[in-house]
Amino acid sequence: MPYRAPIDAYMRLLRDVVGYDRVAGTERFSEATPDMVAAILGEAGKLCEEVLAPLQRSGDLDPARLENGVVRTSKGFAEGYKAMAEGGWIATSAPEEFGGMGLPLTVTTCVNDMVGAACLSLQLNPLMTQGQIDALEHHASDDLRNLYLPKLISGEWAGTMNLTEPQAGSDVGALSSKAVPNGDGTYAITGQKIYISWGDNDFTENVCHLVLARLPDGVPGTKGISLFLVPKLIPDENGKPGVANDLHVVSLEHKMGLHGSPTCVMQYDGAKGWLVGEPHDGMRAMFTMMNNARLGVGVQGVSVAEGALQHALAYAQERKQGRTPDGTIIGHADVRRMLATMRAETFAARAIALSLAVAIDTGNATGDAEWKARAALLTPITKAFGTETGIKVADMGIQVHGGMGFIEETGAAQYLRDVRVTAIYEGTNGIQAMDLVGRKMMDGGEAAFALLDEIEAGAEAARANLPDLAEPVWQAAESLRETTEALLAREMPDRFGGALPYLRGFARVLGGHFHLRAAMAAPDSADARLAAFYILRMLPEHAGLLAEARSEVSALANLSTEDLVA
Amino acid sequence: MPYRAPIDAYMRLLRDVVGYDRVAGTERFSEATPDMVAAILGEAGKLCEEVLAPLQRSGDLDPARLENGVVRTSKGFAEGYKAMAEGGWIATSAPEEFGGMGLPLTVTTCVNDMVGAACLSLQLNPLMTQGQIDALEHHASDDLRNLYLPKLISGEWAGTMNLTEPQAGSDVGALSSKAVPNGDGTYAITGQKIYISWGDNDFTENVCHLVLARLPDGVPGTKGISLFLVPKLIPDENGKPGVANDLHVVSLEHKMGLHGSPTCVMQYDGAKGWLVGEPHDGMRAMFTMMNNARLGVGVQGVSVAEGALQHALAYAQERKQGRTPDGTIIGHADVRRMLATMRAETFAARAIALSLAVAIDTGNATGDAEWKARAALLTPITKAFGTETGIKVADMGIQVHGGMGFIEETGAAQYLRDVRVTAIYEGTNGIQAMDLVGRKMMDGGEAAFALLDEIEAGAEAARANLPDLAEPVWQAAESLRETTEALLAREMPDRFGGALPYLRGFARVLGGHFHLRAAMAAPDSADARLAAFYILRMLPEHAGLLAEARSEVSALANLSTEDLVA
Repeated sequence: MPYRAPIDAYMRLLRDVVGYDRVAGTERFSEATPDMVAAILGEAGKLCEEVLAPLQRSGDLDPARLENGVVRTSKGFAEGYKAMAEGGWIATSAPEEFGGMGLPLTVTTCVNDMVGAACLSLQLNPLMTQGQIDALEHHASDDLRNLYLPKLISGEWAGTMNLTEPQAGSDVGALSSKAVPNGDGTYAITGQKIYISWGDNDFTENVCHLVLARLPDGVPGTKGISLFLVPKLIPDENGKPGVANDLHVVSLEHKMGLHGSPTCVMQYDGAKGWLVGEPHDGMRAMFTMMNNARLGVGVQGVSVAEGALQHALAYAQERKQGRTPDGTIIGHADVRRMLATMRAETFAARAIALSLAVAIDTGNATGDAEWKARAALLTPITKAFGTETGIKVADMGIQVHGGMGFIEETGAAQYLRDVRVTAIYEGTNGIQAMDLVGRKMMDGGEAAFALLDEIEAGAEAARANLPDLAEPVWQAAESLRETTEALLAREMPDRFGGALPYLRGFARVLGGHFHLRAAMAAPDSADARLAAFYILRMLPEHAGLLAEARSEVSALANLSTEDLVA
Repeated sequence: MPYRAPIDAYMRLLRDVVGYDRVAGTERFSEATPDMVAAILGEAGKLCEEVLAPLQRSGDLDPARLENGVVRTSKGFAEGYKAMAEGGWIATSAPEEFGGMGLPLTVTTCVNDMVGAACLSLQLNPLMTQGQIDALEHHASDDLRNLYLPKLISGEWAGTMNLTEPQAGSDVGALSSKAVPNGDGTYAITGQKIYISWGDNDFTENVCHLVLARLPDGVPGTKGISLFLVPKLIPDENGKPGVANDLHVVSLEHKMGLHGSPTCVMQYDGAKGWLVGEPHDGMRAMFTMMNNARLGVGVQGVSVAEGALQHALAYAQERKQGRTPDGTIIGHADVRRMLATMRAETFAARAIALSLAVAIDTGNATGDAEWKARAALLTPITKAFGTETGIKVADMGIQVHGGMGFIEETGAAQYLRDVRVTAIYEGTNGIQAMDLVGRKMMDGGEAAFALLDEIEAGAEAARANLPDLAEPVWQAAESLRETTEALLAREMPDRFGGALPYLRGFARVLGGHFHLRAAMAAPDSADARLAAFYILRMLPEHAGLLAEARSEVSALANLSTEDLVA
């Protein structure tokens, strides 16, 4: 499966659509000029094209497996990982004082996007490490930071996140893992964790687990949870991996996809751990790491969309069938409709994700509360819409292949099987939607309305040059504004039944906004033609989504469980 | 995976929604009274619940395989098939003179729906046989009918359809298989066919292939194609399976799903075949069989939707998580939204399929051209919307399961993997949509407008009792009428770019019509509450779909292949 890194597309998005100039204009990121960014992305793209993309099928056909308690990874993954680590690509935004490049998260987001398109199951490994670096950087003691961060950033060690237990999935507060003080400042961690992505591997010196557990005096629920760093091998006095900790991989899950990524059941039997942050304050540290991880997972959806699109496009251009101008199926209107939809949707999801990264970077560099609020608002939208886009585009990729799409050898089905979990992990998309209409609207909708003002101002500015595109975007933003007001007028539990359609409608409108910006920047370009396709054909979907979000609560509430049976 | 046959739901649909009384009111089907139908469905349902549903996972975990050129089927499939055959369930609509029950296709559709929900990969076997029976009944000579039909109807022999070749998929006319007269009335068939579902098995005495091939004087394209019956074992003078024919299974495909159904590459090396119908007239016979097969495949989507819904509903009622009234996830608004959507969509797709079956039965029993036109119109809608519903509902079923949905052991993923191909085989859904706006509108839209008149009359009649539901259905029908007129005003190739959104919008409106009928029949029932959910929350989607269908052709046509690259 050849993959071509879309460097030009990133650079156009950064320049014309998501306002990367704001990031490069801050003191903190002043060295990350567009030219520098282009050079960096070019290097990362080459690695993805030449080294990582060839591993995609290997991960599927030669799944990670557990042998005598040790994870054996897919053929070629060790070499691929080492190439990433040697190139410095594990965590490009990590702080320079610990050996990182200190690049804007916007740049790392582009890198993650390319790595995920090339080989999603391997990409998940550094994504977990990036989350751990975030959490340690902001919450761990200096000793822990000095010991662990350089190893994680260099890729010598890998990081994992351990939240879920069999009875505690979306309801993290129900977890029962325990942490007992050892008396020497360390803790003995006991419990079982499930769904641990990359819980072990055979290519890093050490694997470091961030584990949520409850101290003896921790109250029930989320307020009694603390966060611990629990290494597979306990570092010795020189900081080298020493004796084995009391933890092991019980089993690997047999999954629909992502076969190259070992999903572990982890058992901790009094394993030695170090507290990260304050006692009982584990959820705060977890959220630090989860917010960026939600951007990361949303981008996984974008990655797969790009990969599936390139794959389908190549097939459509070579598959001879029917009476079309060049004899290939790309001449069929419905095939072309699918490919155009895939491209337009990928553009929208990527623009939303990069605009979130820009908001995070700007907020971090300036401390501006409005940018932080913008980032908070865009996080659930990016996660849910990005992953739904990955699923939708991968599904269309199968359809473009016709009968060959159902045959595993082509690889089209793998994209769908791999990406399906992204709508579930890191907070299901339903939870993202509840977060959007709940927590993210506790400001009375201020952040949402500020974004809508921006969308409408953009549409106003486009009226003179592109009236046919500006008007539908403006109208859609108005409709989203009315729906937002209608939802805000409802009490919290009543908002939830329409939360996901609302999130989808919001993303649909945002997509129109970004497509319009691209069209304004270059009215005779491919981007402008794609924008016309999106705005005239795909944007109208917002009406149905917002109508569903606004519809009377009773339509759902009146249905009893018995009503659903038959 | 337990399965409960929804007999009451079928009977309410037949009585209140799709007008089965019309079928039972014909002389031909006068014995198929509602009481008789209920008894028959009850028997079939028992078989599905007790014998077939337990085979669903077996087909996935123990795929059909090729051993020394012979197909070995999944564990338990032989027993399951024999139970179907002994019960007379292979082809319940087959003519009585050849041993069939002569039941309306509407009843067979319900039976197929249940068998497919219980075990889709096994159900595909008799579905192929049903198609072959159709083709032979209408096009074969008396000798062939007398020899083959009783064996096929009893299930002693199985039937297959051989259309596709590597270079001839959707473009059937490109096929290159050859048929040369042997001089004794038979023909020597040579060529390779791919994607042959159930091309062989180890539980029927014989396998009979219907093969499209070209006679020496056949012109290129579809007009030079003839249809041949080519048995695996050539019947001897007593009609018993005799010597092996010159054909064999080359290999089985490694597919995303439907692992229990062997998808064969078939090789014919001068195999002995018998002409079915007139020389060069093979496509006509093929269409006889394909039209009913399209209903059959649409129903496969409904089957999987029902199976996935029941499976997710059971999980949601037992999975403890979060603070809900009974502690299970079914109390979460977004989970309930998904389950309600799954139920409402399954109802709509099933009602559309059964209304098509009623139209076919009524047309066949009365010869009425309007019913035949109605059936022709509904065929592509049933196929495409039914299969898309299966995919959508199975996907939501995974999401209801959360993390467990991605783990194969739960079976949730299997529904999606199995059903995915239904949007591709038997004419891709894109081809169905082209058929709808092309061939099926060559009457100037007469059949579509007649159906719209009926929908609007139904809405008018509902205004007094259910004004809040009647008005949106009426409005949606008006919008569909306008879009239909707009499409008709376009030349043929220009219609195709909006064909699939149009088909989806048509199905969305039809779903509203049938939900409204159910609500009218019992305004305080579960069906009425489900109708309110569908009409108020899901029907608004038609607006975006129809806007896409109506949008300027240029939005798609302006995009070049290069524009799609990045």
